[in-house]
Parts: sequence; C-alpha cells; structure tokens
Amino acid sequence: MSGADEQAGRRRGRRGGGGAEARRGARLGGAMESYRFITRKLKPYEVLSDEGVELIEHNADLILEEIGIEFRDDPEALEMWRDAGADIDGVRVRFPKGLCRELIKTAPAQFTQHARNPERSVEIGGDHTVFAPVYGPPFVRDLDGVRRYATIEDFRNFVKLAYMAPAMHHSGGTVCEPVDVPVNKRHLDMVYSHIRYSDKPFMGSVTHPERAADSIAMAKLVFGDDFVDNNCVLINLINANSPMVFDETMLGALKTYARAGQATVISPFILAGAMAPVTAAGVLTQTLAEAMAGMAFAQLCRPGAPVVFGSFASSISMQSGAPTFGTPEPALVLYGAAHLARRLGVPFRSGGGLCGSKAPDAQAAYETLSTLNPTMMAGVNFVLHAAGWLEGGLVSSYEKFVMDCDQLAMLQRFSQGYDLSENGQALDAMREVGPGSHYLGCAHTQANFQTAFYRSPLADNNSYEQWLAEGEKRIEQRANELVRKWLADFQAPPLDQGIDEALGAFIRQKKDSMPDAFT
Amino acid sequence: MSGADEQAGRRRGRRGGGGAEARRGARLGGAMESYRFITRKLKPYEVLSDEGVELIEHNADLILEEIGIEFRDDPEALEMWRDAGADIDGVRVRFPKGLCRELIKTAPAQFTQHARNPERSVEIGGDHTVFAPVYGPPFVRDLDGVRRYATIEDFRNFVKLAYMAPAMHHSGGTVCEPVDVPVNKRHLDMVYSHIRYSDKPFMGSVTHPERAADSIAMAKLVFGDDFVDNNCVLINLINANSPMVFDETMLGALKTYARAGQATVISPFILAGAMAPVTAAGVLTQTLAEAMAGMAFAQLCRPGAPVVFGSFASSISMQSGAPTFGTPEPALVLYGAAHLARRLGVPFRSGGGLCGSKAPDAQAAYETLSTLNPTMMAGVNFVLHAAGWLEGGLVSSYEKFVMDCDQLAMLQRFSQGYDLSENGQALDAMREVGPGSHYLGCAHTQANFQTAFYRSPLADNNSYEQWLAEGEKRIEQRANELVRKWLADFQAPPLDQGIDEALGAFIRQKKDSMPDAFT
Repeated sequence: MSGADEQAGRRRGRRGGGGAEARRGARLGGAMESYRFITRKLKPYEVLSDEGVELIEHNADLILEEIGIEFRDDPEALEMWRDAGADIDGVRVRFPKGLCRELIKTAPAQFTQHARNPERSVEIGGDHTVFAPVYGPPFVRDLDGVRRYATIEDFRNFVKLAYMAPAMHHSGGTVCEPVDVPVNKRHLDMVYSHIRYSDKPFMGSVTHPERAADSIAMAKLVFGDDFVDNNCVLINLINANSPMVFDETMLGALKTYARAGQATVISPFILAGAMAPVTAAGVLTQTLAEAMAGMAFAQLCRPGAPVVFGSFASSISMQSGAPTFGTPEPALVLYGAAHLARRLGVPFRSGGGLCGSKAPDAQAAYETLSTLNPTMMAGVNFVLHAAGWLEGGLVSSYEKFVMDCDQLAMLQRFSQGYDLSENGQALDAMREVGPGSHYLGCAHTQANFQTAFYRSPLADNNSYEQWLAEGEKRIEQRANELVRKWLADFQAPPLDQGIDEALGAFIRQKKDSMPDAFT
Repeated sequence: MSGADEQAGRRRGRRGGGGAEARRGARLGGAMESYRFITRKLKPYEVLSDEGVELIEHNADLILEEIGIEFRDDPEALEMWRDAGADIDGVRVRFPKGLCRELIKTAPAQFTQHARNPERSVEIGGDHTVFAPVYGPPFVRDLDGVRRYATIEDFRNFVKLAYMAPAMHHSGGTVCEPVDVPVNKRHLDMVYSHIRYSDKPFMGSVTHPERAADSIAMAKLVFGDDFVDNNCVLINLINANSPMVFDETMLGALKTYARAGQATVISPFILAGAMAPVTAAGVLTQTLAEAMAGMAFAQLCRPGAPVVFGSFASSISMQSGAPTFGTPEPALVLYGAAHLARRLGVPFRSGGGLCGSKAPDAQAAYETLSTLNPTMMAGVNFVLHAAGWLEGGLVSSYEKFVMDCDQLAMLQRFSQGYDLSENGQALDAMREVGPGSHYLGCAHTQANFQTAFYRSPLADNNSYEQWLAEGEKRIEQRANELVRKWLADFQAPPLDQGIDEALGAFIRQKKDSMPDAFT
C-alpha cells in the first residue's frame, strides 16, 4: 500500500478505531468472511473460430461505415465526432473503417474499481470476474411472498444482503427502484445506502447528467477529490437504445462519468427479434458495432477513461413478444461477445442470473444457471444481475438473491480448477486405504475434510425422512429464513462520522433545492 | 442403407405396413418429432493442461502397478489376467506398466448402438452425445405428489415419456425399479417394456449373469441372432465397487455382455471422501485406474467389444455423510475424466441431471444444471440420468423428467453453435431496419421467426397479470399437466406381431421356470 493509498484509506474512514482490532471488530460485527473478486485459473471457452470472429468484426465494421449510429439530441457529441473524422449526416454518425477501433486503444484493458474498504476493491478486466447484484427492478417479491412496488427500505435491504453475501463482490447500483422516493431525488438515497450499509464498490446514477454529477460529488466526500479525479470509484451502466441509437440521457451520463475518469459500461440492450435480428450472429454484429461506437465516444470524452464492453441479449417469444431467458441463443451470443471483447482488449460485462419465471421455482433456477454457467465459462469480467433477478428483471427477489449467491460461490470455487499439489493428488490416501475399504477416517480425509467440498447454506441433502420431519421445506422457504437471519444479524461497516455528516448535508441541500418529481 | 441393414430393419418389424405411409403413421400416432443423437459442433472444454492430465495418467498407472485392483470371487477372471501378464496375489491383480492401456487399444473409439427403428440408432463416441433417462431409483414421486415404491406401471410410463420426449435419444435401462415384480423376474418385464413401448435403443440387465443372458436372448428375438452377434444392440452399466474392486455380480454381467459383443459402461461409482479421496485429482486418478482395469478386462473377454469409460462422482457432506450434488468439485472431475477418455480413445459416460433435492424445486434445478451444463461442455458421449433424477437417485420424478427433457433440448440446440451463413449474418436485416426502428416485422424476421428461438413447452414467459389469472402455476404444475397429456396421447410404435409373441413366450417360459424371489 503506497502512502497515497494509505491516506485515501484513512480518508475513507473505514476503520474508526484503526488497526487490527477494528478490522477484527468489522469482521465479527459485519459481513461474513467475504471472498475477494475472482481471478480465474481456467481459460475462457470460445464457441467461435478465428474465422468466425473475424467475420463478425468485418460485418460490424460495415455497419459502422455504411449504416452508422445515431447520437440523438446532443449537438456536442456530433461535433466531437466530426472533429474525430467521422461523417455526420443529421444525427447519424458514420465511421471511417477502423476509427472506433483506433480510438478504443486508449481504454485500459483492466482497471481497479476502488471500494471505501480497500480489501473490497475489485479488478475489472483480464482474468478477473466480479459479481454484482440485480439492477433496475421496480418491484420486489417480499419476504411474505407479496409482489409489490419496491421502496427505499427494500433498497437498503438488498444492499445489506449484498454486503453479507460472501461471493457478492460488489454492491451494485439500482438493486431495486425505490419508487416511494421522488424520482429526481432517489439517486441521493441510493448512493448513500451503498456507502452507509456496505463497504463494497458500487454504481452511480445514469438517469440524468446532474444525477451522475451528484453521484461523483458524493463519492468525492468519501474518497477525496484528488483520489476520485485519478481513480475509478464508480462504474456506471450506459445502455444503447438499440438498434443503433444513443439518446440524450445516456450520452449525458456517459460524458459526465467519462470526463470524471469514472467507468462506463456501454451495453446494447437487445431483445433479439425486436432490437436486433433474430439470429445469434446478427445480434452479435450489431452489439459489437454499438458497443464500439459508445466506447470510442467515451475515449473522445477523456482518453484513458475506463470502459467496459457490455452486452445484454435475450430472445423473445415470437408468439407473444415476451422476452425469454435461459435459452440457448443468448448463451451463444454471450460466448461470442466475450470473445470479441478480449480481442478488442477491453473488459466485458454480460450474463447474470436471468430468468422469466414469476416465482423462485425450478424454472427460475434452470434459466438462471443457463445464463450464469456460460457467464463463468465465457470469462465475463463484470456480472450485473448476478443475484436476485426474477420475472424478466421486473422483480428483485429476496429469496432468489441468496439462492443465486449460493450458486455464485460455487462458480467461484469451480473457477479455481484442480489442486494438483501433492496433497491434491492424494496418492498416499489411496495407498493407505487400498481396495475394498473406505476413506472416511483416513489421514488425508481427516486433514482435508473441512475445506474439501463446497458447503451450501441452502441445499438440503438430508434423508427424505428427516426432510419430512422438518416440514418438507422447499429451498425458497429455507432461503426466506436465511434472508431474515442475515437482515437480523446485519451490522453496518464502520463509516467515519465526519464523512457521514458531510453526505447528509449534501443530500439535504440537494433535496431542498428542488420540488419532488414523480415522473 | 445397405441391403443387410434393410433386412435387419424388416426383421425388427418396426413398420407393420412398411414404407412411407407407415412412417407417417408412426409419426402421427407415436412420438413427437424426435431429434437424432447429437453431433456437437462445439469443441469440448478442458480444465486440465497437458501436464495436468499427464500427471493424473502417471499416477493412475502407479495405482495399477503398485496397489492393483481386486477381482473378487471370480477365479476365471484372475486366470485371464494371469495369462495376460498381470501379477496375481490372492484376488489382487497388479498390472505391469502400460498393460491396461495396451489392451484397451482394441476397443472401438466410436460405435453404433442399434435401435429396432434404425432412425433411432445412436452413435456413441467421438463428437456425439446421447441422452438416456435416470437409472436405478427404487421410488417414484408420482403425479399426485406421493413418494412411494415404483411399480412396473411406473416403469412403462417412464419408457413412454422417454419415447415421447424429442431430445431423449435413448430408452435407458432401469428407469425405476419395478419392486412389485419379483426381483429374479423383473428384468424380463423391463426389457420387454423397452421393446414394446419404445423403438429407441435400450440397456440390458446387469444384476446377474443369467439376466444379462436373458437380455441378449430377448434382443435376438427382435434383431435376429446374426445381427446381435455382429452389432451392438445393448449397452450395459457395470459399476466398479470403488475403491479398486470389481465383484462377482458385475464381472459376471461384464463377461456375458462383452463376449456377446455388447457394450459395457465401466463406471467407478464414487462418493468422494467415502469411495475415493476428497480431492478432485484423487477422485480422477482412482477413477482412471479402475475404469482402465475394467475396460481392459472387457477386451480380454472379446477384443473389440465396445466399452465406455464411465465416471460417476459426487461429493458428500462431511458433516452427515450424505451425498451432495451440483457442487463444483464433481464438475471438475467430470471435465477431467472426459479429457482422459478422449486421450484413451474410448467413448465417455458421465454427468446427467443429478440433484439431492427431495422436491422438483429450485434446488433440484440449480443442481441439475450444475451437472448437465458441464456434461455438454465436457463433451460427454453417453449421458445416463439425463432426465428424471431426484433425491440423490432414490426417486424417479415424472415432473422432473419432462422439465429436464426441456433443458436437454436446449443443450442440443446450443451444441450446434452459430449459424454463420448469409442468413445467419443478417446484414440485410440491419440495412433494412436501421437506427431507431425495430425488427419485429422486417423480411428477415418474417422468414426466420418460426425456427429462430428454442420454444420451451414448460417455461412461462407471460405477464405477471396473466400468470396470476391462470392460477400462479409453478413449473412443476405445468410439468404435471404435460406428463398427463403425453401419457394420454401415447401410442406405442408398431411392433411385428410375431416378434411380440416370441417375446411373450420367452418371458412366460422363463418366469415359469423358477419361483418368485423378492430379495
């Protein structure tokens, strides 16, 4: 830890008493032992051949050159593109071959997003994977099984659960929409909740450039002005309006964050068949074109600003038009897009625990793992919606949140591959036990049993008779109990009182400066 | 189709009226349009490096040479091993370096298992994947949600469901244990059910050498003596008694099938921590040693007899000793064992939809896909337990059977990778639609929408309001309805009356020849 870092660490006030004692206190009182972000020991899986990805890249370049991308209601953006050598026709920007790719070269291949607790800072890019919670649902399915609009209380609860969950590396952003708070003020309460109830890294508001600026201002109260100017402390979700449009709101947030050196995740949001062609190759081509235009624009705003190639792709029911999840076609897109991002040399965001089910039932679980497993195998770097997503993203589910977190922990363990040490090889165990005996009491088993296998806090592996005696509980009932326990046990990580007061004053001042708005 | 094949086809009597008309009739009356066995277009994923697999191979050779494998209660087997150059010490067989590997060279890398309907014959090995139902449960969870002992009626029902399910390529073996039929006679009813209610390939009995012989005799009544002598029509599950033992029963069945040129799946059955060390590398090493000894023995019985390298590995709860499923450690073993089998040049069996849950809930689905997804990604050739497995294999579940089959169909589709044809690239669609519009009505979407996306018969993607209006059904309720519909719609594929009568006479004669036994 450099002197500057250390200063920043103190500034962040994460350890009131300072030193080992406070650290121990934070562990006992706060989150369970957390896993660090993942450094994968397994190589990513690729579904496309070299010729395949080259074809997609060629086609995406054609789209950028021939069709172009619209940058709407933002004359400044058009001016910037004109200066960069693009062809401007109304709001349509056409890109000479290679321009976007050239601009993207200034983006870092990997960057650190700092948390106020440096032990919780994450690396985004390379061989790393970071899990973040569900983002965006206006509804929750609450602990009484009621589906209703989300509140700021729910928001705080999901922040607390993400803080408690060992394999959740990130506090996320809009873990649910607190619709009981005015739309023009809720970002203040959301950002504050991430700071107050967690010490994991978090996301900023993107719904208005001013709200993005507020997010940065609040981060500066925590991390210090200089630190924020020179380091990434916020990662922010910028959706393209597919097909082939960026709108005023998203461009405003993008410019604000990129100019402040904060990370933007440029994510074409695609329901295939509606916002892109129905074929996987078509979705992939358009995604690449849109993401390249957005990431290149971020580099125009500030060369070197961290960007993430994002992809959200699902298919739709061609009968009803409803989005569908966990199907094979989006999984193919996911693998392909991760591959393209690696070739571009930028971090990649996609995947998550997506599902269309209305309840945390087997449909939800099948669909979730049909996305989560490819997420890990494809080597995604930043995983939004990693836990808690239900009903096509309309609902944040408490129970599914902890159920998904259990799966994340297993994927993290899987990503570490084989232990091929002498202990891992276990030749002595086989020599000791020999044919026809068992390993339950042998020395190797005794020495390793506590850490040998992942232990799920939710899976029931007892006998049928015992399960019956305990009330035939399904996993969602056990998850309900675990959520209640975590929320009851929650203790906020320490936060410097001065910082907390400064945040409070900032929020009061901002809230008092404008009337409530609910649309 | 060669003349000989055609003759065999007729002999099998699969088309009463013969020709296209009967084929059409079979389609309309019988199964839905079935998928053929999978020919994967994606390469298998490997978690171990070359050095890693070489280390495991080296260690397995050490086990075979130093510790050896016991062939119990079978003096003939010991004599065969002595003649082959192994070192015999009591029932312990130690193998000079390279002996097993050398013997296995006569085993085919890939073989056809013939079905009585040649369109349903499957290729086992190479780039192919074949899905087969759950094997072995003594209980069922029935359509009224009752967990009870399985009956022959249940057995027939699962055969019927496997026949109906498009992505189920195989009729399997002991889809459940019909415990209402005497233990010494039930194999006759089981084999008959596979022949009568399906035309997909199936498995023979392994619980006694005589029952294996009966399975072969019944197959000969269907396929003809010569055809069975020269082709594989039965695939049969031979479990090792891990650690490092083959017992009399399994060796008896192994010898019977191998000498008849029928396929044996040599499967160490390992709950890690009990039958093998607690580490993935240890499980893998012991699995390789045991499987090599068994496959080499099959080649001693009849050089060229088809064998399959099998691996069943789960971990256990080190607290209760209960087996656990869907955890990361067995998934690692699965990838490693598939890799070793490819290097040995033999087909590989593992994976399936394993879970420990007592109900078809989210736990069941998470755990199932945590095994099924690696099954496909690792390139498993023969997948037992691909559908219907519940409660650690104690229960065959009707609802889970069709839920799993839905997942199998998705994996089959996924395995075909990208369509990079001009239509797949969809450049014209992007040119037609352009920025800010949508693809719902464009020419490319119109031309492709019917086949663009996998359509699940079970997933509910309707709005919350519609789901509510339809009774808030969870997927298992929809699955229950689908099972009832399939069983109501079932029509058996045609079977030559002469063959049916010959089978009936054989079964009557066998049943009359001995008293009932229930243990």
